[in-house]
Amino acid sequence: MVVGELAHERDVIIIGGGPGGYNAAIRAAQLGLSITLIEKEELGGVCLNKGCIPSKVFAHAAQKMADIHHIDELGIELTASSFQLGKLQNYKAKVTAQLRQGVEALCKANKIELIKGRASFLAEDRIGIEAGEAFDVYQFRYAVIATGATLIPPTWIEIDHGRILNVYSIYGLETLPSHLLVYGNDYIALEVATSFRAFGSDVSLILEDGNEHFGFDSSIGRELQRILKKMKIKVYQKHRVKNVASSLDTVAVTLKTLEGEAVTVEGSHLFVSCNMKANIDELGIDRLSMKRTEQGFIDVNHKAQTSIPHIFAVGDVTGGPMLAVKAIKQGKVAAETIAGEESEVDVTFLPTIVHSLPPIASVGLTEEEAREQYNDIRIGHFPLAGNGYAGIIGQKDGLIKVISEAKSEVILGVHMIGAGAIELISSGIIGLETVVREEDFKFPFYPHPSCNEGLLEATEALQAEAIHLSPTKQRKSEKEAVSR
Amino acid sequence: MVVGELAHERDVIIIGGGPGGYNAAIRAAQLGLSITLIEKEELGGVCLNKGCIPSKVFAHAAQKMADIHHIDELGIELTASSFQLGKLQNYKAKVTAQLRQGVEALCKANKIELIKGRASFLAEDRIGIEAGEAFDVYQFRYAVIATGATLIPPTWIEIDHGRILNVYSIYGLETLPSHLLVYGNDYIALEVATSFRAFGSDVSLILEDGNEHFGFDSSIGRELQRILKKMKIKVYQKHRVKNVASSLDTVAVTLKTLEGEAVTVEGSHLFVSCNMKANIDELGIDRLSMKRTEQGFIDVNHKAQTSIPHIFAVGDVTGGPMLAVKAIKQGKVAAETIAGEESEVDVTFLPTIVHSLPPIASVGLTEEEAREQYNDIRIGHFPLAGNGYAGIIGQKDGLIKVISEAKSEVILGVHMIGAGAIELISSGIIGLETVVREEDFKFPFYPHPSCNEGLLEATEALQAEAIHLSPTKQRKSEKEAVSR
Repeated sequence: MVVGELAHERDVIIIGGGPGGYNAAIRAAQLGLSITLIEKEELGGVCLNKGCIPSKVFAHAAQKMADIHHIDELGIELTASSFQLGKLQNYKAKVTAQLRQGVEALCKANKIELIKGRASFLAEDRIGIEAGEAFDVYQFRYAVIATGATLIPPTWIEIDHGRILNVYSIYGLETLPSHLLVYGNDYIALEVATSFRAFGSDVSLILEDGNEHFGFDSSIGRELQRILKKMKIKVYQKHRVKNVASSLDTVAVTLKTLEGEAVTVEGSHLFVSCNMKANIDELGIDRLSMKRTEQGFIDVNHKAQTSIPHIFAVGDVTGGPMLAVKAIKQGKVAAETIAGEESEVDVTFLPTIVHSLPPIASVGLTEEEAREQYNDIRIGHFPLAGNGYAGIIGQKDGLIKVISEAKSEVILGVHMIGAGAIELISSGIIGLETVVREEDFKFPFYPHPSCNEGLLEATEALQAEAIHLSPTKQRKSEKEAVSR
Repeated sequence: MVVGELAHERDVIIIGGGPGGYNAAIRAAQLGLSITLIEKEELGGVCLNKGCIPSKVFAHAAQKMADIHHIDELGIELTASSFQLGKLQNYKAKVTAQLRQGVEALCKANKIELIKGRASFLAEDRIGIEAGEAFDVYQFRYAVIATGATLIPPTWIEIDHGRILNVYSIYGLETLPSHLLVYGNDYIALEVATSFRAFGSDVSLILEDGNEHFGFDSSIGRELQRILKKMKIKVYQKHRVKNVASSLDTVAVTLKTLEGEAVTVEGSHLFVSCNMKANIDELGIDRLSMKRTEQGFIDVNHKAQTSIPHIFAVGDVTGGPMLAVKAIKQGKVAAETIAGEESEVDVTFLPTIVHSLPPIASVGLTEEEAREQYNDIRIGHFPLAGNGYAGIIGQKDGLIKVISEAKSEVILGVHMIGAGAIELISSGIIGLETVVREEDFKFPFYPHPSCNEGLLEATEALQAEAIHLSPTKQRKSEKEAVSR
């Protein structure tokens, strides 16, 4: 085949229709560029079809299941209730189909050319697209790689998608595991553990690779441990997996404590959090001199540019935190940079969001990080048990924590676990991005009653000014901050 | 009785234990002042015992009732459900009792002297307190009046608390009205109408005094009208009440259109939104030369100081918006001012919050106000139907609207109706207080998926940059903004 003379000419080719790819495509189209988007499977990518969206459908249903007892207390009497996982799968399928159709419609409305096929680079300005029997060559001015990443299970396990599941297969289950073992300590493991526990499964959580904590700020971590215990989720900390034995009915995981003692945990199913590797095997980038990271991801700068300046890469294929929110931002920045605008990605205030039960949302420095970087910090805690609205809605577990630098009073971090955390964290993110000081969080009005008041009182607690927290508790927290 | 020689001496006396009073008391105690708090009924005031908290308990239960169909779709199968208003009353009583006990415990922990009795000023530095048979005189250095306000029904109606109800009695009902007529167009009328509709009552809403709108930004108003129609709440706009006839079983309200036509609406119960008058009749302030507003409220400055500088007044007794959030802020400012700190109340960015179904939250200028004050503004709308998370949780009604000044790109107003509005509005409030520009709302990360992304996309829509909104819809909105 002679490539070159026969090549179709295109301005911008985007490979991969997940959040990074389709946000890049639409943003670029808005800026007047003509866009070709190539997807080998379904628009929306892993996020929409197998990841973020399905897991949030489950988390949402889990929240509703956890509400059932509370609903009764409100006077809504239910004579009986049962949970049908198959029905939730139908709902998930409906939601993801609608969202996919939405993305398709938006691509059409933005006059984006959609091509279904597998793309691979032939040269720095040429791509081949294989679609069934056909193979076409396209010449481009700019390309954006948004091919994502693939799950890599730990070496000691093979995911069979029957009793041993990864994040894609667990959200495809049609029947509820009687006892789910969850291995991992990332946000996915926490979402899986708390969702299935709410549905009625027994759940045991094995922290990854000998870990003791989930990696949150210490106060959030302690509150989470307390809540998991209350939910009767058994947590195995500081253990390593020695062996997994799977039979027709059960999965048995043998663990070893750091002291060498062996413990066996038996369940009906095992969920395993995985590492990720870049989806580049079929992409032909070995033909190009494109810089890669040590972990094999595509190396990009803060404009999502690869080492070949007219080729960009966005999302999971670039490594770092595997989060749609980062892919979306990189996609927009790539589009704006191609269009000649000034734009950049800055992940300093990338939030951590967990749709666990209750949710966790966190941005900026943890207490531990703040202590390392600053001489003198302040810590303000406010337990939701002291928040009137949390009392009304029967969700008093959780807390809000604010950290500031004592001298400048600049806010360094905002950490939340509990009702409203995900919606409220944007106040924290916008605040950190605009370098707010304590006063900027204290001066505004907060709806009364609302969970929002928890953010106010956590900020007030920085200087023992919270109204709904006893003076001794606030002074103790101040003292701790100083003495440690 | 000789007052003076026998007077007890106190530093700061606060009259009234509602949100304004108890926040003032605790904040003052934190600042080292010795505080006496006088309450004639129950701590927490109208807000905790009869207003904000009970209405939010109802709104919360209403949200859960409205969820029942959706819950089924998620696989949580309920064989039957019924609603028992009496049980919700028990829950309300439990919640308010807990909150009241919380306030009591906080007063104790802050060493606040609590006196149950009726207070009245004898002189500018003396108060008499009547408690049963006893009458004691207290001399004070500072006083804070936080006595609240009383409901005044329209002249054409007498509230009998049987079939004709005000905000206190409606949240005390033990059985559900079959057809509730709601008169008013404030946030209370909307909360009552949507809560009882969700519980299963038929509801008709009669806008106050010939009004056509609810007073929100026009886009919010239109979306609200659409949602009320969908909920089958009949709205009577531009009518005036001519006559109310109440029988053993029914209440009939005869209305007159602005053209003079008569319409009679019959229901089982009538709720009436009321005006308010300051609670000062028993307060003895006629003995002092304290300045009052035209409406008879106590006139205060931005430090919550009355015309007698060592006497402060906070909350509803000072007139203006009758909102706990304002009372709380005034209470804290009064305490800080008494303690010699610099502090002030600025209501520029006082939000409007409605716990209707769905909720409404709004801060800053409406489109109409912005057009009056600025030559060139931008409007960004984002319907929640385009938000992925709203799809997941099955709450696609509503929209987010952002208004900016075109030249400076400073954000002027943020208006929301729909899921997450109340938690999210704090991003808008903090943003307006810190004078953010469009870029400050666009640059940060927004959790994906989340309702928060609606705020991002509404801001992006200011310049036709929203990803999940078709180009024609955004350009149309831009054009409208320019052409009007």
